[in-house]
Amino acid sequence: MQQFLDRQRPETPCLVVDLAQVRNRYRQLRTALPDARICYAVKANPTPEVVGELVGLGASFDVASPGEIDLCLAEGAAPESISYGNTIKKRRDVARAYEQGVRLFATDSAADLANIAEVAPGSQVFCRVLVDNTGSRTPFGRKFGCLPETAVELLVRARDLGLDAFGVSFHIGSQQLEPEAWEHGIDAARRVFAGCAEQGLRLRMVNLGGGLPAAYTQSAPPLADYVRRIEQSLDRHFGAERPELLVEPGRFVVGDAGVLRSEVVLVTDACDGESRWVYLDIGRYNGLAETEGEAITYRLRTSRDGDPVGPVVLAGPTCDGDDVLYQRTRYELPRTLRGGDRVDLLSAGAYTASYSSVGFNGFGPLPTYCVDGDQQQ
Amino acid sequence: MQQFLDRQRPETPCLVVDLAQVRNRYRQLRTALPDARICYAVKANPTPEVVGELVGLGASFDVASPGEIDLCLAEGAAPESISYGNTIKKRRDVARAYEQGVRLFATDSAADLANIAEVAPGSQVFCRVLVDNTGSRTPFGRKFGCLPETAVELLVRARDLGLDAFGVSFHIGSQQLEPEAWEHGIDAARRVFAGCAEQGLRLRMVNLGGGLPAAYTQSAPPLADYVRRIEQSLDRHFGAERPELLVEPGRFVVGDAGVLRSEVVLVTDACDGESRWVYLDIGRYNGLAETEGEAITYRLRTSRDGDPVGPVVLAGPTCDGDDVLYQRTRYELPRTLRGGDRVDLLSAGAYTASYSSVGFNGFGPLPTYCVDGDQQQ
Repeated sequence: MQQFLDRQRPETPCLVVDLAQVRNRYRQLRTALPDARICYAVKANPTPEVVGELVGLGASFDVASPGEIDLCLAEGAAPESISYGNTIKKRRDVARAYEQGVRLFATDSAADLANIAEVAPGSQVFCRVLVDNTGSRTPFGRKFGCLPETAVELLVRARDLGLDAFGVSFHIGSQQLEPEAWEHGIDAARRVFAGCAEQGLRLRMVNLGGGLPAAYTQSAPPLADYVRRIEQSLDRHFGAERPELLVEPGRFVVGDAGVLRSEVVLVTDACDGESRWVYLDIGRYNGLAETEGEAITYRLRTSRDGDPVGPVVLAGPTCDGDDVLYQRTRYELPRTLRGGDRVDLLSAGAYTASYSSVGFNGFGPLPTYCVDGDQQQ
Repeated sequence: MQQFLDRQRPETPCLVVDLAQVRNRYRQLRTALPDARICYAVKANPTPEVVGELVGLGASFDVASPGEIDLCLAEGAAPESISYGNTIKKRRDVARAYEQGVRLFATDSAADLANIAEVAPGSQVFCRVLVDNTGSRTPFGRKFGCLPETAVELLVRARDLGLDAFGVSFHIGSQQLEPEAWEHGIDAARRVFAGCAEQGLRLRMVNLGGGLPAAYTQSAPPLADYVRRIEQSLDRHFGAERPELLVEPGRFVVGDAGVLRSEVVLVTDACDGESRWVYLDIGRYNGLAETEGEAITYRLRTSRDGDPVGPVVLAGPTCDGDDVLYQRTRYELPRTLRGGDRVDLLSAGAYTASYSSVGFNGFGPLPTYCVDGDQQQ
């Protein structure tokens, strides 16, 4: 990655993704959860090379849209490796996915379930339950998932509609810093399993969702801590009746594999003299959408590291007042920093390039370059 | 517009812009402020046909980036009609603009001013001051503008660096619902004029910025109220020494000219039974970025208008928990609404399509179609 940046000196801003890192992360998770089906959350980084790399490793895929299904198929994924994980789907998009061979669908509402039953007959469905997102840097709010008792109703109805009522999913929130958070979801899943069993329906699968972290400024526990807590919860609630497992890592697989290279546009003094403002050529609207609310705080590396530092406000290049990255979060950067200098945002591989606008304020989308750290050595 | 939607039935979501409305708005402003130079804020809607239409009407242009300069020139704008209004500019982008013939630049910092003086010698500069944004639905925060006393220093320095220290700009916040808000900026401008005069520098221009509203759910005063207040403030602070004026309307010119057509993906009941959730195929990441914080509340029209209504939460189609449009703002929609129905968002011509992501969650950018209401009649 460093070689690529040093030799190619690509125009900024740009994202560079190391496929070797992606492989390492996938294998690490494969080893840690050997019996779980790993569905890469394509939305985290839909770069074709990343998807293709994961196809080669035998991954499955969690997709949100027809566009993501097409991408996975184009990269060689088998239709049966695809999980249509968005509970919000047009009826004709469900039909299209079914025609393409997709047979696994998330749901959380009667309306969506009725569509699946009609245009994707016999498919497997899992029902998403709403769980506490405490500990997540980007919690989900109430948009997705239903109550466990509603999930029981929907899954029983799914069976009665001729579908394969497969299991339960939940999402404890992305960039989840508390390994014990999965307990909420596994407990809720167990309740849905029990409720369905009372009606003669034996569920078989628990989808643990995403939430595994990347390395931002706040330290996150190691993978082993997450896995231990998840295993404890599974033992507690399911014991010997351990269900099939599915996980949907996105950020964990690709976050740390990316470096976003940017250039300092200007360094100015603020009106009140409190902090310098450092304006980068990357901002909220060309790749750093997750700085909204300062939720994701990237680690930074500059071409003047080592010089004395001082507090800064960091902002993007557009004429938009909301295009400010970090104002409350304390960042310190070299006092020598000036226009033309380089600032790298580390662990920026997830939820960056695909968020970038088509051209807000005339600034184009963030390009992505893939390198392979193993091949270069 | 209605004809186009009825006959062409374009795939949703899409934005349709009526160029006749754009013309009307430009002429309305031309009449109301006959001696002001009207610089269309390209960022509001950079559709080439919109820019081309305004070139034909003799408009000037407020641009934020090299990309917007290229766009204006490609549509036939003269370089001298372009105001580089972004105070955050790379040095090489200033040089490029100068080579293209641009001779008018905003600034608000010593670093940017030094760049302009070096690579755009002799150009006109205006200095942006920070003003109170009360009354704006999308206030700017502290990203842009300096204190009036700093502006005096910068403008005097500009003169000393061989630049033409032209005047002062401010922005009272976009979608400004209080016509008296311009008083803050005109008062600040007068102070900068006075401060410069003390040092033998006679400024000539006040840039009134943007802020004129489009018609969302909250009613906005008519244009005449804004113009009357602005004229009163100018009289109060400048009297017979009336400066040249420049305005930067974006939303006012193109906001009401656009209709965003979307389709209902699903209608579901919320977990707690409070409100239905209506999911559209348009959301935060494919065009409705200004629903962040529910700042801009679009008027809606559905294919079931007339049926009894009930409260809804409105959300977009992605797997993102933040892709919720209106949860606190009370919206009521027909109880009969269901998947496949049409929902039009009115006055959606500004700050929509250009904000849309390249493909977050696999959903593509919002396409724009231009029609001409005059030609069709």
